[in-house]
Amino acid sequence: MADHKYIFYGTIIDTPNPLTLRIRQEHVCVVNNGKIEIIEASTNQNLDEYQGYVFIKLSKSQFICPGFIDLHCHAPQYRQVGSATEVPLLKWLQKFIFPNEARCSDTSYARDLYTKLVTRLLRNGTTTVQYFATIHLEATKILAEICQEKGQRAYIGKVCADQNSPDFYIETTDESVRNTEEFINYVHDMQKGRNIAGTNALIHPVITPRFIPTCSINLLSRLGQLAKKYDVHIQSHIAETSDQVAFVHCLYPDIGNGRDVAIFRETGLLTNKAVFAHGIYLADNEIDEMVTSGSAVASCPISNFLFSKGITAIEHLIGKGLTVGLGTDVGGAYSSNMLPVVRAAVFGHRTMDFVSFDRSNAILPIFPEHKDPVIDFKFAFYLATLGGAHSLNINSQIGSFEVGKQFDALLIDCNREDQAFDYWKDDEMDIIFEKWINAGDDRNITGIWVQGIKL
Amino acid sequence: MADHKYIFYGTIIDTPNPLTLRIRQEHVCVVNNGKIEIIEASTNQNLDEYQGYVFIKLSKSQFICPGFIDLHCHAPQYRQVGSATEVPLLKWLQKFIFPNEARCSDTSYARDLYTKLVTRLLRNGTTTVQYFATIHLEATKILAEICQEKGQRAYIGKVCADQNSPDFYIETTDESVRNTEEFINYVHDMQKGRNIAGTNALIHPVITPRFIPTCSINLLSRLGQLAKKYDVHIQSHIAETSDQVAFVHCLYPDIGNGRDVAIFRETGLLTNKAVFAHGIYLADNEIDEMVTSGSAVASCPISNFLFSKGITAIEHLIGKGLTVGLGTDVGGAYSSNMLPVVRAAVFGHRTMDFVSFDRSNAILPIFPEHKDPVIDFKFAFYLATLGGAHSLNINSQIGSFEVGKQFDALLIDCNREDQAFDYWKDDEMDIIFEKWINAGDDRNITGIWVQGIKL
Ligand SMILES: [Zn+2]
Ligand SMILES: [Zn+2]
Repeated sequence: MADHKYIFYGTIIDTPNPLTLRIRQEHVCVVNNGKIEIIEASTNQNLDEYQGYVFIKLSKSQFICPGFIDLHCHAPQYRQVGSATEVPLLKWLQKFIFPNEARCSDTSYARDLYTKLVTRLLRNGTTTVQYFATIHLEATKILAEICQEKGQRAYIGKVCADQNSPDFYIETTDESVRNTEEFINYVHDMQKGRNIAGTNALIHPVITPRFIPTCSINLLSRLGQLAKKYDVHIQSHIAETSDQVAFVHCLYPDIGNGRDVAIFRETGLLTNKAVFAHGIYLADNEIDEMVTSGSAVASCPISNFLFSKGITAIEHLIGKGLTVGLGTDVGGAYSSNMLPVVRAAVFGHRTMDFVSFDRSNAILPIFPEHKDPVIDFKFAFYLATLGGAHSLNINSQIGSFEVGKQFDALLIDCNREDQAFDYWKDDEMDIIFEKWINAGDDRNITGIWVQGIKL
Repeated sequence: MADHKYIFYGTIIDTPNPLTLRIRQEHVCVVNNGKIEIIEASTNQNLDEYQGYVFIKLSKSQFICPGFIDLHCHAPQYRQVGSATEVPLLKWLQKFIFPNEARCSDTSYARDLYTKLVTRLLRNGTTTVQYFATIHLEATKILAEICQEKGQRAYIGKVCADQNSPDFYIETTDESVRNTEEFINYVHDMQKGRNIAGTNALIHPVITPRFIPTCSINLLSRLGQLAKKYDVHIQSHIAETSDQVAFVHCLYPDIGNGRDVAIFRETGLLTNKAVFAHGIYLADNEIDEMVTSGSAVASCPISNFLFSKGITAIEHLIGKGLTVGLGTDVGGAYSSNMLPVVRAAVFGHRTMDFVSFDRSNAILPIFPEHKDPVIDFKFAFYLATLGGAHSLNINSQIGSFEVGKQFDALLIDCNREDQAFDYWKDDEMDIIFEKWINAGDDRNITGIWVQGIKL
């Protein structure tokens, strides 16, 4: 670590809150030992003091910003990402997802697939990921190793499923609990082995009941006990689609009226380290309960558009105090890239104000008074960075640039010859940033750091 | 032209109708004199007969498909594409659009901007574009020249606006009509000069009242007369946003109850060569009237999400017999690329089935029975190719691959080292195509032909 000392000079962009795009120009950011030591206007700095630091002077078209946090990513589904987007959830699981996930019992298949995925995610600027792996212990360990080797911050779960899954892709309740516990211990050992003084562990275990339909109440309860015993993160799906909501209601009508939130609560899984994907069909009292528990929602708008007949009401959830971040959902959507997710979050929000009208006669529709939309590109970028950090309870460590935080950052250059949009040198930095968010891609990412280490 | 003779051997993909992705594998496509001469299974072909043809053998990861048709593109707005996406329409016009468009009175500014735009659109695989230029005759001629030089098929309009526009960006009614007529004649002269035997003219004039608020009834009527005199294309905006619909209603309450469709009809602009952008707030009788007239709608879903509080009901419009294509809208959206538009058309369609529910108590929402969505990636690709050709009444010339049609095509390679998604060699061609549509970009476009000429 001692060699990873950087001084950045130029424009530093982040979102310290959902409404603020903070653009610090002509600033200096000093990174040492994985952390931000100094961040201030450059006039205060005598650069001669910094011997042994790599000095990176950003040009007018460049800035640094926080790396993306993908809160919900199904690693094995990377095999079919971008395809099979036209099928309802439960049918899609049977036809595409379960067979593909089952292939990860072959560890060499899993190693190849996960290597491709982690490489791709890093190239797309995703510095932290919360992964669903598969039910296979070995393949899940492999994913953890790949993330560690490549230097990605990763929260990883071995998927748990002891019912309503095909014969070729199911485990017993005991296996599920035992392998989950073994995976927790495996990652905790990894952390001890690699946790160099002054740095944080990169890899973390996550207790991962796939979703309620594939888990017996006994399994959920025993996973709740493990979560308590080890004080680790939890992830699952919640209130996602019509068929899923109806299925849960039908399976467990006597537990909390067959509602996801109540069932997670009853089984000890509604904690302040839990992140639940989607959260579309939540009642207000359920949202309140999630707020009280300290759990969070990973909104995956591309996936929602395709499968859910609705969109996470992000503004409503945040208005009630819930913590929200964004996820790709990978196979459940079609992107392994957070930029299209950020854009889809804006689209999703706009649908909340869609006007319904009567086509039967040509009169003027009644439009509600215009109010500026709350979730714009800035807010969505916040969700993809600091919002994700909040959801994982690591907002004191990453998600924005503050003294003492870990340096997980991207160097963006908006004047690359091969890029997807044109650069005008008289554009202000806020415009350049917005153009990258809306029209840019990985071609603009020319440097990636995780915990102060350039990857 | 004589030198532009090609034989493609491999996979040929197009959408002869909205529901069919036609994948012709191991086929031969012979292109001569701008047109497709032969397209059939390769076993029937003796390639030795084709002396002087360039032979292009496609690999397993490659296919050809029709070039995109962007039905609605504001050329001058390319200057701010990707920014200023958070402002209501009329305010946005005043603050960003009018000032940027006015700059095109400077022809060297316009030449530079339009060169960048046309280059970018071609790079993105857009082989045909219907452009709004500005009110400036000279800059509009320059756009026509650039498209001709670069070999893009283009339908181009000098924008008309004689009221409700700022002092620095307005024309008199006489100027508007005179310059429109001069532009029509200019392009018709261009066509004569360059129309080599056996080829079609690439550039076409379009009568272009910006939208009803900026046009006096007198101007609209005189433009209607010009349209009749020259039998040329027409484009404008229709039923786009709440503020626009309300403004028109307030301006012309006595003409057809202040509705766009009626006003275009009354002024002679509702013809079978007219394409109207958006068409969101249309009543059913207005849709019927458009069908009868033979006019078409250019849906711009990214722009609709951002500005319109609603989405073109494409399935409904097509179900009633209306012709629909897709457009970027450029500045009105954030993309100069048709792929994100294709994806947004799918999102937009899914919002039609969004379920509303009551958050006040945690009961099961009532979901309508699932039906497979009609507008999927195939249907949206159809809209972006043959649908656009239908809208321009040139479906007998372009939009799909048939013997006798012009060859406007893209060579797509889904196994490029720098591409945005991973390639698996055991994926079937329909999966590869879907992955490109959902997760690919211009990096996969390795060849572009317009009218049989490689650009
Ligand atoms: Zn998921
Ligand atoms: Zn427009």
